[in-house]
Amino acid sequence: MARDDIPTDERLDLRLERTIDAPRALIWKAWTEPEHVKRWWAPAPWTTVDCRIDLRPGGIFRTVMRSPEGQDFPHETCLIELVENERIVFTSALAPGYRPAAEHLGDDCTGIPFTAIVTFTERAGKTHYSAVVLHKDEAGRRRHEELGFHEGWGTCADQLIELVRRLRR
Amino acid sequence: MARDDIPTDERLDLRLERTIDAPRALIWKAWTEPEHVKRWWAPAPWTTVDCRIDLRPGGIFRTVMRSPEGQDFPHETCLIELVENERIVFTSALAPGYRPAAEHLGDDCTGIPFTAIVTFTERAGKTHYSAVVLHKDEAGRRRHEELGFHEGWGTCADQLIELVRRLRR
Repeated sequence: MARDDIPTDERLDLRLERTIDAPRALIWKAWTEPEHVKRWWAPAPWTTVDCRIDLRPGGIFRTVMRSPEGQDFPHETCLIELVENERIVFTSALAPGYRPAAEHLGDDCTGIPFTAIVTFTERAGKTHYSAVVLHKDEAGRRRHEELGFHEGWGTCADQLIELVRRLRR
Repeated sequence: MARDDIPTDERLDLRLERTIDAPRALIWKAWTEPEHVKRWWAPAPWTTVDCRIDLRPGGIFRTVMRSPEGQDFPHETCLIELVENERIVFTSALAPGYRPAAEHLGDDCTGIPFTAIVTFTERAGKTHYSAVVLHKDEAGRRRHEELGFHEGWGTCADQLIELVRRLRR
């Protein structure tokens, strides 16, 4: 579940949930250390060729995804809330350092302003992994869905789970 | 000073600074409790007829300013970082609950996306009060300045200082 005091709206938001057979501290590590993030962030056959994370409120969260054709898609967002092992909130409506972001004009998903609230809840050694992605309006939610949100974030979640499995060994 | 790790840019940002002869805990109180905020937030002869503050990251910061002619200007922003007695960060680029804000089309200052970083630093019983207001581009900074940022925020700071003086008695 997302933070109880953050309202969500099914018309505007997209959601991904998984139960992962691992303690949340390990998933947090895979989620917040660039060397790990580069291994699961982009849905294969895409790759993540760069990742930079300054893990504090206002810090940068930057990724560069490379398409199979070799085109690079940099994306810079701002981390806004971090509770270790529990919650990460980041948004593309702000640039790193909290500055309001410039217009979003890309025709890929980097062109859609969104805020993602990622939550890790541990129960009996397993982790409930949840991501709620908030859009400013229905058009944004629909566009993100058309661009393949569910397949994309789903594939990445599977890659994250696979990485965590290898890290446990 | 603002947080050292948040870069500012004189071309894009506006700044207000004051030294206030009061401990910062008292100024924090005047800044964060709606009943106090209503007494200094709008530059007289404007008034603040409503104020709502949910003092936590993602919480609402809402004010309604009333012009001398009786027109109301509601403004809802999102609190994003709070360090008690030290720092408040809020932004109009996000709606309360971290959702990317709808387009800003007002021709008053509520139409300009900005992030404000307000800092309270105490030295020898006095408080250095600083507000840095970040804009996404030079046009936003210029427009905010033309709409009277310095006079407006300056008058409000003076009203805040006067209120704090009365609270000390």
